[in-house]
Amino acid sequence: MSVKIAVLGHGVVGSGVVELFFRNKKSIEKRAGCEMDIKYILDLRDFPNLPYKEKFTKDFNDIINDEEVSAVAECMGGVEPAFTFVKACLEKGKSVSTSNKELVAAKGDILLAAAKAHNCNFFFEASVGGAIPIIRPLHRCLAANDIDKAAGILNGTTNFILTKMYDDNMSFGDALKLAQELGYAEKDPTADVEGHDACRKICIISSLIFGKHVYPENVYTKGISEIQLCDVATADILGHSVKLIASVRRLADGRILPAVMPMLVSHENIISGVNDVFNAVLVYGDGIDQAMFYGRGAGKFPTASAVLGDVIEAVKHKVTVFSQSWESAENNSFIANIDEFSAKWYFRVPDGCQDIGEDAYTDENGKSFITFDKLTFADAEIKAQELNAMAYIPVFE
Amino acid sequence: MSVKIAVLGHGVVGSGVVELFFRNKKSIEKRAGCEMDIKYILDLRDFPNLPYKEKFTKDFNDIINDEEVSAVAECMGGVEPAFTFVKACLEKGKSVSTSNKELVAAKGDILLAAAKAHNCNFFFEASVGGAIPIIRPLHRCLAANDIDKAAGILNGTTNFILTKMYDDNMSFGDALKLAQELGYAEKDPTADVEGHDACRKICIISSLIFGKHVYPENVYTKGISEIQLCDVATADILGHSVKLIASVRRLADGRILPAVMPMLVSHENIISGVNDVFNAVLVYGDGIDQAMFYGRGAGKFPTASAVLGDVIEAVKHKVTVFSQSWESAENNSFIANIDEFSAKWYFRVPDGCQDIGEDAYTDENGKSFITFDKLTFADAEIKAQELNAMAYIPVFE
Repeated sequence: MSVKIAVLGHGVVGSGVVELFFRNKKSIEKRAGCEMDIKYILDLRDFPNLPYKEKFTKDFNDIINDEEVSAVAECMGGVEPAFTFVKACLEKGKSVSTSNKELVAAKGDILLAAAKAHNCNFFFEASVGGAIPIIRPLHRCLAANDIDKAAGILNGTTNFILTKMYDDNMSFGDALKLAQELGYAEKDPTADVEGHDACRKICIISSLIFGKHVYPENVYTKGISEIQLCDVATADILGHSVKLIASVRRLADGRILPAVMPMLVSHENIISGVNDVFNAVLVYGDGIDQAMFYGRGAGKFPTASAVLGDVIEAVKHKVTVFSQSWESAENNSFIANIDEFSAKWYFRVPDGCQDIGEDAYTDENGKSFITFDKLTFADAEIKAQELNAMAYIPVFE
Repeated sequence: MSVKIAVLGHGVVGSGVVELFFRNKKSIEKRAGCEMDIKYILDLRDFPNLPYKEKFTKDFNDIINDEEVSAVAECMGGVEPAFTFVKACLEKGKSVSTSNKELVAAKGDILLAAAKAHNCNFFFEASVGGAIPIIRPLHRCLAANDIDKAAGILNGTTNFILTKMYDDNMSFGDALKLAQELGYAEKDPTADVEGHDACRKICIISSLIFGKHVYPENVYTKGISEIQLCDVATADILGHSVKLIASVRRLADGRILPAVMPMLVSHENIISGVNDVFNAVLVYGDGIDQAMFYGRGAGKFPTASAVLGDVIEAVKHKVTVFSQSWESAENNSFIANIDEFSAKWYFRVPDGCQDIGEDAYTDENGKSFITFDKLTFADAEIKAQELNAMAYIPVFE
């Protein structure tokens, strides 16, 4: 008897899941070790011209009440009604795979607990880095490591904009407009441009590595809308690329410091070569030193590929995979304040200013340099005021 | 009751496995879901000063006859006696994790069959790309994909040598000498420099992706010992890095074409930024488009980290993981000959020669260019003779 699957949502990702499933059905079944079929697709819209039109339903009850359905792919996006639907599925023992980072970042702990309580799985590989396998390698392949730091380029839209500024000398505004024309950015680009999307993803990675739920509202988040073209150009002259970096590190006292902000990345670092809409995650552990995972962070088939990979895992694992999970946090005392963040900084100050850094470079936009010493966030702000800095950006290390 | 492990070989990797295990025992046990202990370490040498000296044995029979031992880490290297020992373990139902690429490339199909027959696992994440999670992501996270191509920098020694030629203008001979001084290259560097090590690794990747055992002797393998400094420098001017690329692709008729050879990689490709002893593997699939895995391809703790990750998996999976396996090949008719390989080529020819490529660049070493059109391996050889070429190298795409 074949395993029956339901797909919630037939938007970009959901339709990708259905198409990729039927395209590679034979090899997917071989890897899952059993026959599989999609029994339901939940969507309020009509799709009368699709070959699998008879699989559509507008009623979630059809799915939740069908005991044949043992695995569900959630591709609706947003917290509600996704949360209510996913929780209901897990409570019926149906494993769920999701691409919904907003849902995982807001409610991951609750859904993981529900999966445990009902001996099924809540998988979310697609919620971070799209097609890039990162969640499973983190908890499986790197299981022997003490991981103390992770950092990545987790938003394709902002990376595309920064690449266009760098490669084609475009202003932030022009590059954003191009991203919107190409469909890489939404009409309202706030979630991408201001770093909220990257923040949700670093919350998921932080929760997984350190074992406690990290909420987006507890993570310092700064986007790229204030990045000037001249700073991108000057950073290059100083041997760096400007990237929106989402990172988390464990401090000496065991607390963690997650943050999202534009940073200067040395051209020597492999992550500086991650361009256009590509994403990458660097992981640092005591065994591995460093490893990087790179690929398409978004898009119909890349994301669908990750969702389907999880569905196959769910079909193969009939019991809860405990290791890929974390606990609720009673409070946020394990999260350090951004004031404790320390780095070298890039400053752009008025020409004539006495510089306090190496390799100062001067042009019509002012004098730019990178500080010799590390400064905390608070100290960098004070220094910026003292120097009347037009821009100051931390350097990634 | 705790799960008992044996480690075969206490050389660089084996001692790393033991040290990393005791360093991270608590978190490893949490991830494995049970208590674990190393009961035996097999080595013919004495280590009287180690805190775990009582665990050493010189007699493999102690391990094979101890029913308490359920997982074994093989870190001896070489085909024998590793093959005999590993096969005996699997036939007793003890799962084995290995870092031994020579063993997997030569005998993988036999050992995978033995694991299946005795309901245990033969894992080999550490045999390709050291610390980089690649084997498991390939068969798990990318399970929904039709993968038709993989390519990588799979040997750290040669990548270090090429990086030194590029960065520091060193000749091949001087860079090799430095690699030997730093412990990156063996006294007899043949296996690394002539591509045999990279060949074993692409054999393992090819076997896993395409499901049939690919033997090293059926793979075209060319090393970097003929690469001239002037070609590395000229390639850079033409926008490329010279890398030792191990690759495999599926042809239209379903046969596969694995190969190891120096290639020019465009600076636009993320893999051109993989430098020093780092390794990386690019995977191409119909869902993901492309993904890259990057990290330390060798070294004590990076490799130990991958072996231990597999041991944890083996402890968690009490039944054979069928999907991470392949079959014996009855013959090699599924492997295409290198003559069918087709690419654009870099040529360096005597100045005055009429060029047949784009962006010709001339200096005292001759005239260099990349061909407009793709040429097969055989046609490139003919063209090189016609033009009296001093060098010709294919371009990676």
